[in-house]
Amino acid sequence: MNPIRSVCIAGAGVIGGLFAGHLGALVDTKVLVRRQDHADRLNREGLRISGKSDLQTTVLASIEPAELDDVDLLIIATKAMAVESVAKGIAGHFDRAAVMTVQNGLGLEDVVAQYGDWPMISSITFMSGVRHSDVHIEYELDTETWLGPWNQRGASMNFAQAVAELIRNSGLRAKAFEDVRPAQWSKLLFNSVVNSIGAVTNLPHVKDFANREKITDLGNLVADMMDEGKAVARAQGIELYQDPWEMNVNAVNRGKTGEADYAHVFSMLNDVRAKRSTEVGWLTGAIVKEAHRLGIAAPIHEVMYSLVKGIEQTWEPNDERRGEESAA
Amino acid sequence: MNPIRSVCIAGAGVIGGLFAGHLGALVDTKVLVRRQDHADRLNREGLRISGKSDLQTTVLASIEPAELDDVDLLIIATKAMAVESVAKGIAGHFDRAAVMTVQNGLGLEDVVAQYGDWPMISSITFMSGVRHSDVHIEYELDTETWLGPWNQRGASMNFAQAVAELIRNSGLRAKAFEDVRPAQWSKLLFNSVVNSIGAVTNLPHVKDFANREKITDLGNLVADMMDEGKAVARAQGIELYQDPWEMNVNAVNRGKTGEADYAHVFSMLNDVRAKRSTEVGWLTGAIVKEAHRLGIAAPIHEVMYSLVKGIEQTWEPNDERRGEESAA
Repeated sequence: MNPIRSVCIAGAGVIGGLFAGHLGALVDTKVLVRRQDHADRLNREGLRISGKSDLQTTVLASIEPAELDDVDLLIIATKAMAVESVAKGIAGHFDRAAVMTVQNGLGLEDVVAQYGDWPMISSITFMSGVRHSDVHIEYELDTETWLGPWNQRGASMNFAQAVAELIRNSGLRAKAFEDVRPAQWSKLLFNSVVNSIGAVTNLPHVKDFANREKITDLGNLVADMMDEGKAVARAQGIELYQDPWEMNVNAVNRGKTGEADYAHVFSMLNDVRAKRSTEVGWLTGAIVKEAHRLGIAAPIHEVMYSLVKGIEQTWEPNDERRGEESAA
Repeated sequence: MNPIRSVCIAGAGVIGGLFAGHLGALVDTKVLVRRQDHADRLNREGLRISGKSDLQTTVLASIEPAELDDVDLLIIATKAMAVESVAKGIAGHFDRAAVMTVQNGLGLEDVVAQYGDWPMISSITFMSGVRHSDVHIEYELDTETWLGPWNQRGASMNFAQAVAELIRNSGLRAKAFEDVRPAQWSKLLFNSVVNSIGAVTNLPHVKDFANREKITDLGNLVADMMDEGKAVARAQGIELYQDPWEMNVNAVNRGKTGEADYAHVFSMLNDVRAKRSTEVGWLTGAIVKEAHRLGIAAPIHEVMYSLVKGIEQTWEPNDERRGEESAA
């Protein structure tokens, strides 16, 4: 029997909502959110999942960790930049829990580990959805979540397998790995490249990302940037689980063959369009940092990181008036 | 007395229009345009200049070089990508003329020289304006045009001085140089950097382009990219006339101090927004090519060139439907 009887999900965006809405049908499920009105509405109406699943779940939501009983598993499902504030908030709580991070990017486990001695699970997810409201998430791409014991202060492999089993039993897809880093790095390299290029070019994941016919085709830049990232992974002794270039080609073809009926808009591009801070520091920036530490050149990552951070800087409140068309 | 009694301007956009509207008040002035209705309207209504000048000029316009008498000076004032088609069109015409190119970018003189043995003047211009209609240009920034004998098959320095004098007498500003390449390269490096960064970030020339306080400030990327370009210029033995970084800071401050009341929208950004081909191949691409020829690394130029060409590629007619917001 699965040893995990209770879970808490921190963050109820698309990913957190999908976990809470599915696990809530199976085990005692709590949700930690940022806004009181969000907690109130979840407590009143529960959580609805449509799309690939059809569920209506009861959850106990709060903005205060102290108001939620201890659990066996706490999943931090916020965006990367919110992880530190969640970790601060749960410090001194959830003594019994193992904590699982599920962000895109590198180093989130280290951030959490500063605030408590929970055993930890590293994970990445490929599922996606659309957030229709505070209490309604549409489950879109039913792809896997990959997880495993963190390589520094990990929970046991048995526990990781129990987490994967629980997630599968709830109607989502998951797979446990002894070492999840090869998978984590595959997704990191993929995301670092396509998200940053999408964010600066204002392009969703159109076929051009995989096009290398002409020297000026965008796919060449994608491939060259991925090669840089692969060199950084190799220097760390990580053998990638999946080639990021293949992930790129597959994702583009999914759009082309009608499996998905649109070109995917990367989360970083959504953030740029909405003038929200992006995850670039945890993706492209993390690779730049690792490259520097290892003494490896990563000039394309450096340029793309600078461009996205540069765009973010221009949203500062004292920004200048934007000009109208004028020719020189 | 100035030896130049007749001129022809190819192209009547902002720059061509400013030349034609000013020179037309002084000497016999013809205009070569692409559209018949544009020629008709110029012949009927003449050309109006407002703003820093206030002029109403009569010009003789045509789409056919054969319909225009020979002249002393022919100024090609189109965008870089139209120069070759103009040169093809004037091949076998204007036997007496010297030809002056005034585009942003590198190598336009070579393009023209393939189609005729006219003596040539290299030039760059810093003046700017707004095109209100086919027959009305507003003269905005009254900055100089710099010109000199082309270093390969140039007109004489005396002739270059006569051109500068004629332009000055017409109410515009101009300066003749024995060797205009140091000035040309200064503007090339400036434009290659700020235009490509503006085009991919969708930013006009805001203060962030000169900001280097934080490591993530956009000014660092601007400075690093300019350093790459400077190394290419140095390797050719060109001592820059003006530091492109200073040009950048000055331009940003012009906007800040109210001399110009907006942040300048680069022409390449205007082209990207309108989904028109850009001049990136003549600017950033030209520096990449020179760097390769000289065996110098220019990774930032390579990335920026790839990004802009990549964006252009996505406008091809078989482009995919663009996606709506969706989170992963």
